[in-house]
Amino acid sequence: MLLRGERLGEISGDVLEFISSRDADRQIFEADLLVDRAHLAMLKERGLIAAEEFSAIVAALDGIELAELGEGEDVHEAIEAELIARVGAVGGRMHTGRSRNDEVATCIRIVLRGELLGLMAEVNDLAEALVERAAENADTVIPGFTHLQHAQPTTLAHHLLAHADALLRDFDRLQDSCQRVNRSPLGAAAFASTGFDIDRKRTAELLGFEGLVENSMDAVSTRDFLLEALSASAILMVNASRLAEELILWSTSEFGYLELDDLFTSTSSIMPQKKNPDTAELIRGKTGTVFGSLVAALAIVKALPMSYNRDLQEATPNLWRGISTTRGAVRILTGAVSSAKFNKERLEAASGAGFSTATEIADSLVRKTKIPFRTAHQIVGALAAKGGTPAIEDLDEAAERIAKFRPSERGFGEEELAAALDPRRNVAVRSRIGGPAPEETKRMAADRRRRIEENGRLVEEMRGRVDSALAALREMR
Amino acid sequence: MLLRGERLGEISGDVLEFISSRDADRQIFEADLLVDRAHLAMLKERGLIAAEEFSAIVAALDGIELAELGEGEDVHEAIEAELIARVGAVGGRMHTGRSRNDEVATCIRIVLRGELLGLMAEVNDLAEALVERAAENADTVIPGFTHLQHAQPTTLAHHLLAHADALLRDFDRLQDSCQRVNRSPLGAAAFASTGFDIDRKRTAELLGFEGLVENSMDAVSTRDFLLEALSASAILMVNASRLAEELILWSTSEFGYLELDDLFTSTSSIMPQKKNPDTAELIRGKTGTVFGSLVAALAIVKALPMSYNRDLQEATPNLWRGISTTRGAVRILTGAVSSAKFNKERLEAASGAGFSTATEIADSLVRKTKIPFRTAHQIVGALAAKGGTPAIEDLDEAAERIAKFRPSERGFGEEELAAALDPRRNVAVRSRIGGPAPEETKRMAADRRRRIEENGRLVEEMRGRVDSALAALREMR
Amino acid sequence: MLLRGERLGEISGDVLEFISSRDADRQIFEADLLVDRAHLAMLKERGLIAAEEFSAIVAALDGIELAELGEGEDVHEAIEAELIARVGAVGGRMHTGRSRNDEVATCIRIVLRGELLGLMAEVNDLAEALVERAAENADTVIPGFTHLQHAQPTTLAHHLLAHADALLRDFDRLQDSCQRVNRSPLGAAAFASTGFDIDRKRTAELLGFEGLVENSMDAVSTRDFLLEALSASAILMVNASRLAEELILWSTSEFGYLELDDLFTSTSSIMPQKKNPDTAELIRGKTGTVFGSLVAALAIVKALPMSYNRDLQEATPNLWRGISTTRGAVRILTGAVSSAKFNKERLEAASGAGFSTATEIADSLVRKTKIPFRTAHQIVGALAAKGGTPAIEDLDEAAERIAKFRPSERGFGEEELAAALDPRRNVAVRSRIGGPAPEETKRMAADRRRRIEENGRLVEEMRGRVDSALAALREMR
Amino acid sequence: MLLRGERLGEISGDVLEFISSRDADRQIFEADLLVDRAHLAMLKERGLIAAEEFSAIVAALDGIELAELGEGEDVHEAIEAELIARVGAVGGRMHTGRSRNDEVATCIRIVLRGELLGLMAEVNDLAEALVERAAENADTVIPGFTHLQHAQPTTLAHHLLAHADALLRDFDRLQDSCQRVNRSPLGAAAFASTGFDIDRKRTAELLGFEGLVENSMDAVSTRDFLLEALSASAILMVNASRLAEELILWSTSEFGYLELDDLFTSTSSIMPQKKNPDTAELIRGKTGTVFGSLVAALAIVKALPMSYNRDLQEATPNLWRGISTTRGAVRILTGAVSSAKFNKERLEAASGAGFSTATEIADSLVRKTKIPFRTAHQIVGALAAKGGTPAIEDLDEAAERIAKFRPSERGFGEEELAAALDPRRNVAVRSRIGGPAPEETKRMAADRRRRIEENGRLVEEMRGRVDSALAALREMR
Repeated sequence: MLLRGERLGEISGDVLEFISSRDADRQIFEADLLVDRAHLAMLKERGLIAAEEFSAIVAALDGIELAELGEGEDVHEAIEAELIARVGAVGGRMHTGRSRNDEVATCIRIVLRGELLGLMAEVNDLAEALVERAAENADTVIPGFTHLQHAQPTTLAHHLLAHADALLRDFDRLQDSCQRVNRSPLGAAAFASTGFDIDRKRTAELLGFEGLVENSMDAVSTRDFLLEALSASAILMVNASRLAEELILWSTSEFGYLELDDLFTSTSSIMPQKKNPDTAELIRGKTGTVFGSLVAALAIVKALPMSYNRDLQEATPNLWRGISTTRGAVRILTGAVSSAKFNKERLEAASGAGFSTATEIADSLVRKTKIPFRTAHQIVGALAAKGGTPAIEDLDEAAERIAKFRPSERGFGEEELAAALDPRRNVAVRSRIGGPAPEETKRMAADRRRRIEENGRLVEEMRGRVDSALAALREMR
Repeated sequence: MLLRGERLGEISGDVLEFISSRDADRQIFEADLLVDRAHLAMLKERGLIAAEEFSAIVAALDGIELAELGEGEDVHEAIEAELIARVGAVGGRMHTGRSRNDEVATCIRIVLRGELLGLMAEVNDLAEALVERAAENADTVIPGFTHLQHAQPTTLAHHLLAHADALLRDFDRLQDSCQRVNRSPLGAAAFASTGFDIDRKRTAELLGFEGLVENSMDAVSTRDFLLEALSASAILMVNASRLAEELILWSTSEFGYLELDDLFTSTSSIMPQKKNPDTAELIRGKTGTVFGSLVAALAIVKALPMSYNRDLQEATPNLWRGISTTRGAVRILTGAVSSAKFNKERLEAASGAGFSTATEIADSLVRKTKIPFRTAHQIVGALAAKGGTPAIEDLDEAAERIAKFRPSERGFGEEELAAALDPRRNVAVRSRIGGPAPEETKRMAADRRRRIEENGRLVEEMRGRVDSALAALREMR
Repeated sequence: MLLRGERLGEISGDVLEFISSRDADRQIFEADLLVDRAHLAMLKERGLIAAEEFSAIVAALDGIELAELGEGEDVHEAIEAELIARVGAVGGRMHTGRSRNDEVATCIRIVLRGELLGLMAEVNDLAEALVERAAENADTVIPGFTHLQHAQPTTLAHHLLAHADALLRDFDRLQDSCQRVNRSPLGAAAFASTGFDIDRKRTAELLGFEGLVENSMDAVSTRDFLLEALSASAILMVNASRLAEELILWSTSEFGYLELDDLFTSTSSIMPQKKNPDTAELIRGKTGTVFGSLVAALAIVKALPMSYNRDLQEATPNLWRGISTTRGAVRILTGAVSSAKFNKERLEAASGAGFSTATEIADSLVRKTKIPFRTAHQIVGALAAKGGTPAIEDLDEAAERIAKFRPSERGFGEEELAAALDPRRNVAVRSRIGGPAPEETKRMAADRRRRIEENGRLVEEMRGRVDSALAALREMR
Repeated sequence: MLLRGERLGEISGDVLEFISSRDADRQIFEADLLVDRAHLAMLKERGLIAAEEFSAIVAALDGIELAELGEGEDVHEAIEAELIARVGAVGGRMHTGRSRNDEVATCIRIVLRGELLGLMAEVNDLAEALVERAAENADTVIPGFTHLQHAQPTTLAHHLLAHADALLRDFDRLQDSCQRVNRSPLGAAAFASTGFDIDRKRTAELLGFEGLVENSMDAVSTRDFLLEALSASAILMVNASRLAEELILWSTSEFGYLELDDLFTSTSSIMPQKKNPDTAELIRGKTGTVFGSLVAALAIVKALPMSYNRDLQEATPNLWRGISTTRGAVRILTGAVSSAKFNKERLEAASGAGFSTATEIADSLVRKTKIPFRTAHQIVGALAAKGGTPAIEDLDEAAERIAKFRPSERGFGEEELAAALDPRRNVAVRSRIGGPAPEETKRMAADRRRRIEENGRLVEEMRGRVDSALAALREMR
């Protein structure tokens, strides 16, 4: 073992397995090589290693493969040991002025940055899929629900845009998180920085970071950046699970509002007729796994004294699990939404059921007869208690009893009642900002398309900056 | 009961208690009256109620006290019932074009906005307290820890600034959260907006919001804004708990690095000599409570179909508990940090203990003799295994054995060894960005003071905009 | 302040509020007086206080009311201070040989024991309500679901008994938990027990405990008993939330399988026709709150060193919230289940929909024609892909194509197909242990009734032992 | 694909990867083959398959290797497909009268049963290690802590036995959990049981179960058994983390009470002198991971309607992660505890520091002079405020001022004061049940050894019953 040396002696297999991060380190192997390169390039520029030493070490790093690494507590140690095996003692210059503490924090941030950019693009795609389905359905009248009961008619566009808007906020949260992730802790060394004349801004630049985590003790100790990324993922999964829940409900034979494409369903080993919405159920279930990753990481970091503690190693696999679970769910959901078939006939037929136009009757009564809303609400409530589709006589009778007047004598007659009972007209009059009226959902869909385009550009720009920095770094010899 | 009417009949006491939000509604009572006023003012401006009706209703609202409200499922219903009792059926006009669904979402956002601004100011105060203590201690050399073991010397300033920087990120997260909270859902009505010709932008303006939650279904359904506020609080508590943990550890008789002011301690009912760091322990403990609030809210909102579901009511008390627990902890921590007495003698004495200057010996060896760092690390590791303060002979012996050379013959003699063993010099050479050297921590302290001032101004400006909007609203008659 | 004395001086209001447990202490006030009495009675019996002192102190305790207590960090200190105010310095003998650490642990266990016994009785009542509804519905054929898709016909009895069995396991878990709670830590004093010649078994007996938490350091430090009670509550809420979810789904107009009694529903402030399953939604939501209480308590106790730490105070309000939330949910659910009206016509009509008898066709094919099940599954799967109710010709065609034989020529003709398509016969043949056949669900219902009776007796016996111990203690003068 | 057939068509790679449980299924592969065998043996006994068919299928199952299985949604389908590839269509008889729903539930219970038995044995080993270290240290006087402050002297035996007792309760909780796990759901089929004349008791017996999960809908739907196992693991980890925390604290140079064996420590890549308690830190950190597994599983199962839903698949990897993390932590902790070196000199020297004998002075004063405890507490509190080791004159002066008498004139003189100040005597007089006095800790150690032996026997018996059932099953041809 490279590090234990004379000091601590051999380690046993079970303890090594227990303390090793090697399994999780596969995730950061590529990033670690980049960190090595950036650190070495800076050391060379500052005259802390010679140009030939730099070239020799970098050439050797080029040949190192994850699968060939020997044992070791972690990937950093294993790479250094392999390097020394290849180039000799000069390889031992690589660790000048740094520590595994700043190294691993830098690696996690590099990989997480890439994951977040990937997730941002995928969330944007899901929002786009929803907006496109909405744009096709500005005129599809459907039942709107509160408490899972029919409440008032709305449109499918309105409903899908609600989900899209939630996802656009998720995008913003991920972006905020990504900016706090994208800062370099490198050069903090063990926590006290170093007496070597290193240049932290230069390594940050080489690695495509947009600034430093300045205080060197903070730089190696903090994991708040990953707690934030997991929080943003957990909230995103809450939003995704709400959409998944509706895919499941709407696919039931009772609702029958939607049919998932076969690709997103499974059958049964025993019941040959089954077509089950397994993908949507798994998205719902994986929400719990992301909650668990967040809770694990919060509990791990709680109450740790400064600076680095080994507990922090345990936070990282929870991070990768949380983020990759989220990404998988978002991608599958995009496919499911894009390919689902809505049963428009059934949705429209249901849109007026359950006396869901009652609010519009009360509202129309207020507008025509100038009675207070609460009075109108009570009159229509009495109609609802009676059941069935009300006739104008029913309305007159109820209003007479409750409020001592007959609507039909104040301009609210059969025609007005029929209009209020029409789901399509219910929707048409709800043209306020954010409402379900077709012109308003069309306006929103157009606006969201613009926002989605901007989001896409933003991700591409961030990615572009990172990619060109890293490409240049890989070229350095 | 105002709403159940003929439709649903009486409710029993135990069920009413179960479904009632009245206990949690105390928190939003004032906000609800503001929402009533803003909605009424807009209704008047749009000609949906008459000016006299507006005046009569607003005058009656003025007189309503929380303590006088009758029974009711929630505060909204109770206020409306009380209003109608005071001004008659015209009071029933207040609920025109709105619903409890948008009303309660608006109330929660108004109160949460205030709480977040309060918390932001308090976090800023805690960061300031840390920076001030740091500024006093740029030259206080202390042991720096990794794995709670002495690692390398650092300064108290460096250590306290690490905590301050974490809190400044918490400030930023809270600010991001506050901006997403500060948007108005009012006018979404039950979820489908309304056929009445209301003006959502106007009510948003009257209530001091900086925009809308546009889609009306999203507006009443989403609680991601409170999940984000709870996440930011949970992460902040992680950072606070790390500081609290150190107050506890450093107060032990074993560490003895710090004495909390008596005000922040308690004694025992049985052991009269005890002076316990109870406040710091409770801050650490309350971190768990904030985690619990977050988990509760995440689990509550998971997989709810659109749009409003009564489950959402249960998220709110978890929100208030989480935020108020966080605020109390931050305020107390500020007092504890400001008044703590550091035992500088003991800290300085310990700063070189545990051979914590070993890294500097290795680093100096590299600088003077040009050997690779890993080789230097192995040589000094051998010294560490031997124990005691090494003499130059020990170093020569170890280097000879391991790397076939004698440092004293390559310019690393007694003087160089003595310098490397001096904690104060260890610190002085660590003057990289973010390092513990006095000039660097002074630079950072000055920079953080500026940032803290800006943060303070930012909170005041946000608060000012809200306060003047609400003051104007309260004046409307 | 009774305890701070000359040692620590005055405390400020905000710090006192922060560290005070007085709010949560209301819960343990009565228990604390019982603990005082038991400890005093034992002190008298051991000759550590005089009989007259005992009588005077106990008489004074009789008069102490929660509402009259002065300030103080906690209820223990406040009671002692009030006692000394009433009887003079002799009151200071009460705290001989004990500490607040063992006192509060004892109080929590006394109150929690009562809460758990209450919850056990309530869970048993809910199981009973389910079994009674099941017993009425042994012959009510309904659709059985997997993945929320119609899977195979079953009976309402079978479905409700599944929920009942889950709750009976919850009862067992609560009972296991209660037995570990019901042990006395009293006499552990601060953690080191005491040099006074106290009798721990005697105070345990006086307080109705069934043994000791023996090791005195463990006795004051452990909170695993409350973690276990919260875990059992969280698991119970998972089971309750599954039942609540079905009440919500089955109440939709799409399912229409169930109507909740009006008492368990609410209406809307704007949509007068609404009848919402608010109680069931809140039960589902409160599940999250109980999860949060558990997470809070786990995170609080994690990694605390021995022995008592003030963090533990913060676990207790999370305990009370978790348990009382659970109890409320169980009670309301019992009422909702007992009074719900099942729409049997609609359930029966749906029981054969969605080709849910496909499994029985495949099974019958296997039994009659001896083909392997997987082959039968494939044949019927082909029928399902085709859609509609299959005729014998369809079956012959599919079997011919897939397995080269015609079922009608091997004894599986129209009659056999008709039988397999009959939901009621599907259920009748599923008479294995635990299956939906009426005779089997009747057997299970009868068996569960016996178990519920036994559970009821068990709770009554446990309660009886506690009550008579405490009644005797209250009589001691 | 065996199951999708004509019904659902091909699946794409990304969706298959998303819905597949194959990764987690490695855990249950062996169990699944056992379930296949038991089911087949029963089918043969009931005449549902022929003896030759049984022999042919079982022989083919013998040759199936995990690594050779083809694609498929899950291991059940892949095994069946491989079987049919080997023996032809007759392999399709295996799935007669069962479903993947009961199959997977049975597999999880079989594997979990084994894991819990393993964990029980390991927890028992850890308790034993603690009791053995305690037995060596009945006379080692150490400082006892509350609030991490020196409180009163105690013994190392007393302290270690406190941890052992907590672990013995964990053993009991695991045992309760294991009994509820060890019941067979097999024969429940998809959820409705089956029309085939299967024998559920027989398969339960063949698989070593101690009873059935009777109701067939409950049998496939419930996952409360795994929630309970995860809860018991989380509580156990809380207890383990408390011990780990002390290993970390006591290893600091400030405490210096303990040195971990080198095997359980690591060094630094940069600081050659470091010897860090990494194993203990990781145990503390892994506690968070187990909390996360529990939260994930709770959130996944919450509010799922009957019966099987695909979300349940997502609970299982969280189960395996939680249990295996716990087992690893317990095993490592046992090694660390067994091999740690306690620094007895330093512990004993610290045992009287911090005026930790103050309680004994107050107690002795009460016993000698008959003043009330609270008065004695105030007198000694005044001494503590003054600081230093008190002389009899200090005591007289304080008592005079506070209580108007001089202890030295009432029989409490220099000798009594010296006795009270002696840590060893403090411990000796605390000989109540559960106290630190050597004779009492020896009694407890002997008692715990007996209990640990019984626990060991119990695990062996449970394991023996399972192993012989499974061995017999494997022999059936």
